[in-house]
Amino acid sequence: LGKPEYALIVAGGKGTRFKSDVPKQFLEFAGKPVLLHTIEAFLRYSQDIKLVVVLPSDQLEAWEKLKQKHKFNKEITIVTGGLTRFQSVRNGLQHVPDNAVVAIHDGVRPLVSRDIIATSFQLASAHGSAIASVPLKESIRISEKGKSKALDRSKFRMIQTPQTFDAAYIREAYNLPENTSLTDDASVAERAGQPIFLFEGSYDNIKITTPDDLLIAEVLQKRKENL
Amino acid sequence: LGKPEYALIVAGGKGTRFKSDVPKQFLEFAGKPVLLHTIEAFLRYSQDIKLVVVLPSDQLEAWEKLKQKHKFNKEITIVTGGLTRFQSVRNGLQHVPDNAVVAIHDGVRPLVSRDIIATSFQLASAHGSAIASVPLKESIRISEKGKSKALDRSKFRMIQTPQTFDAAYIREAYNLPENTSLTDDASVAERAGQPIFLFEGSYDNIKITTPDDLLIAEVLQKRKENL
Repeated sequence: LGKPEYALIVAGGKGTRFKSDVPKQFLEFAGKPVLLHTIEAFLRYSQDIKLVVVLPSDQLEAWEKLKQKHKFNKEITIVTGGLTRFQSVRNGLQHVPDNAVVAIHDGVRPLVSRDIIATSFQLASAHGSAIASVPLKESIRISEKGKSKALDRSKFRMIQTPQTFDAAYIREAYNLPENTSLTDDASVAERAGQPIFLFEGSYDNIKITTPDDLLIAEVLQKRKENL
Repeated sequence: LGKPEYALIVAGGKGTRFKSDVPKQFLEFAGKPVLLHTIEAFLRYSQDIKLVVVLPSDQLEAWEKLKQKHKFNKEITIVTGGLTRFQSVRNGLQHVPDNAVVAIHDGVRPLVSRDIIATSFQLASAHGSAIASVPLKESIRISEKGKSKALDRSKFRMIQTPQTFDAAYIREAYNLPENTSLTDDASVAERAGQPIFLFEGSYDNIKITTPDDLLIAEVLQKRKENL
């Protein structure tokens, strides 16, 4: 028997980069809010997965309206976020049991595929962690104090989500003090001395951070539906 | 009086990642081949710019047909490419005078804006080089021998084109022996001891390397036209 599978979806964003009052996870493409696409991506992988969604306290009402409007009635756990992503993930992990495997995922990465989710759970069960990542498409330079230097791009990986972990391990890592240099779950786990296992994500697993990204998400979603 | 401005457009790609016989620079979006969009982006910046386009020898005929089909009759210099990007750029630079400023640009970056081109010429005239680059949107890890480590992403820049230079400087840099670790023009210039000046590019200045990128280019192009 496998371990229970949880998805912890972190949706803490405000609307700033969109010059919009609507937080980016509630903006729509292809007829639905970004966050709902993200949640449905996990439900397409498994109807049995447990969903924990972290939302800022001032967005709980908007979420209730959105559920009604889109007739979404799957049972999920809604958790109030903290001031930072670190605090939001820590809050969410309180609702995940120690014997679970938990996929921590950005609420604004709606195009994650069933294959990537499945692979992340399999690998994290075996290795303790599984971090979606992709090779760099472009050259990269390091830039400090106004000087920059070329680097060998083949040595680097861009990190995506899901970042999937043994739940007991990642909760332990999040119980250490917050540190603003830790920008993702893998770096939090690494700080706690845990092994980081990378696997191949996908370039279309984009993070919605600008209005252009919404247009891109729509066209990629349509392409998938036509496959 | 300013220095003469050249664009050296490098279009060496084959169709492999597209599972297509058509080289990616000849694939179409919004009714036109990628390469023609790229060329027109520079002509929108200036009708007086001198254009040097490097093409593989086996694509010269396809280019002639494409010109006829799309009624493109601007005078441009076509140069035959080499076996590598390095050799192609070196060949192209033989057609750029020493007193010029030259913007070296990927043939498959069709969405480059007039502003970015203008800025690159201004800054390269003043500083000897101007390299379009953007901050990282995602976390990054360095990965060697199966182990990976978190890095502070704020120290890194993704490098785009145009990479614009004093023509005499960059030709001198390309006269040194080829080295496969040099993946862009900035790293070639750096190896020759030349100063590298980065400026702010744009996330929509994408490089077309997959079929998804063609769909994305089309939607971004339409959005620009509707602004």
